[in-house]
Amino acid sequence: MYGTETHSGNARTATRRYSMHLDEEFGHADVTAKLREIVRDAEVQQGHAVVAVVGSTAAVTTIEYEPGALADLRAALDRVAPTTDHYEHNARWGDGNGFSHLRSALLKTSLTVPIVDAEPALGTWQQVIVVNLDNRDRTREVIVSVVGV
Amino acid sequence: MYGTETHSGNARTATRRYSMHLDEEFGHADVTAKLREIVRDAEVQQGHAVVAVVGSTAAVTTIEYEPGALADLRAALDRVAPTTDHYEHNARWGDGNGFSHLRSALLKTSLTVPIVDAEPALGTWQQVIVVNLDNRDRTREVIVSVVGV
Amino acid sequence: MYGTETHSGNARTATRRYSMHLDEEFGHADVTAKLREIVRDAEVQQGHAVVAVVGSTAAVTTIEYEPGALADLRAALDRVAPTTDHYEHNARWGDGNGFSHLRSALLKTSLTVPIVDAEPALGTWQQVIVVNLDNRDRTREVIVSVVGV
Repeated sequence: MYGTETHSGNARTATRRYSMHLDEEFGHADVTAKLREIVRDAEVQQGHAVVAVVGSTAAVTTIEYEPGALADLRAALDRVAPTTDHYEHNARWGDGNGFSHLRSALLKTSLTVPIVDAEPALGTWQQVIVVNLDNRDRTREVIVSVVGV
Repeated sequence: MYGTETHSGNARTATRRYSMHLDEEFGHADVTAKLREIVRDAEVQQGHAVVAVVGSTAAVTTIEYEPGALADLRAALDRVAPTTDHYEHNARWGDGNGFSHLRSALLKTSLTVPIVDAEPALGTWQQVIVVNLDNRDRTREVIVSVVGV
Repeated sequence: MYGTETHSGNARTATRRYSMHLDEEFGHADVTAKLREIVRDAEVQQGHAVVAVVGSTAAVTTIEYEPGALADLRAALDRVAPTTDHYEHNARWGDGNGFSHLRSALLKTSLTVPIVDAEPALGTWQQVIVVNLDNRDRTREVIVSVVGV
């Protein structure tokens, strides 16, 4: 592609909301295949795809989805927001997931991927993951939402 | 919703830009109600809502908006980017807000929320917050921007 | 602007994909001028602009683009994910860039900027940067993608 490619016309949106069960603390899932499928369903040439997880103790990001990199991310979160630290949230609410709220606020619950030539623009080793950061296993609601032309 | 739900038609956008005064270092505001209002104004069934703050010493994320979780986030930022560390930014510019720039670059200044069935898809305990990270109180400009069908 | 400003009509998209060579570990580029140019090309009054970098060892964020703040961000990444730590990714794959994957997963590979009055809504000192976090210099693919009305 040389220069800026522009399109104009009817907007198209596609949305899928679905659930997945994820383990406590760092239960993770690779949702890249689902993202590709929904972008295909949307029949959008250019636009934006958002992957989001509902709630305040989960996160979405990209990573090479292999056990080593995942273990490294988990270890980093353990350093930044240790499970056993004192948390004001726990002192007030007694549910023990203060570290989960903190990790979610730092990592955030959504990610936007541009759509180029009807495909999400991701690298070969770049997978979109949803992570349950809560201190108990959870059925998490995931949303993939596409807007474009 | 079973499978992917798609829409096609005129694009609709809605934008509101407004100011709020926030305290120094960690002045925060819950902007979730405003986000819901602007999504309603947009009359969009499916799409994306972006909440952003203008500037390089502020941030947007989601958290359970209660004093404990907010204190925990502030404490984590104090560990990752202490106010009293040496910062090259301060050495060059003398304005003392090197920690503020760093925290903003790490947390980022915008968040995207998918719109499903004409509502921002957020959990019950998941609020969208704007945080002023500067070393002085600031009137910050917040933008809520919706695109969809 | 008082209240919510809404638009409705044909959706417009604009996409540019281009490459830039960046140094290892923290090679950075200010892409704000390019972002402004593509938003202009899009002829969009309101909408969303996404800046993304393809791959799992790079990131996009905003910062005041001056050597001090950049050095502070690099130093913070060195603390959170030191280059010389033990990484499970390295133990498995031997490519030595475990810290790069971790930093990218934490910072994320895209950023969304709202478009207001046909301009990306950024502060005077708020620049959009692409950072190569890999342990070797790389030619990185950057995408700027606009959707709006």
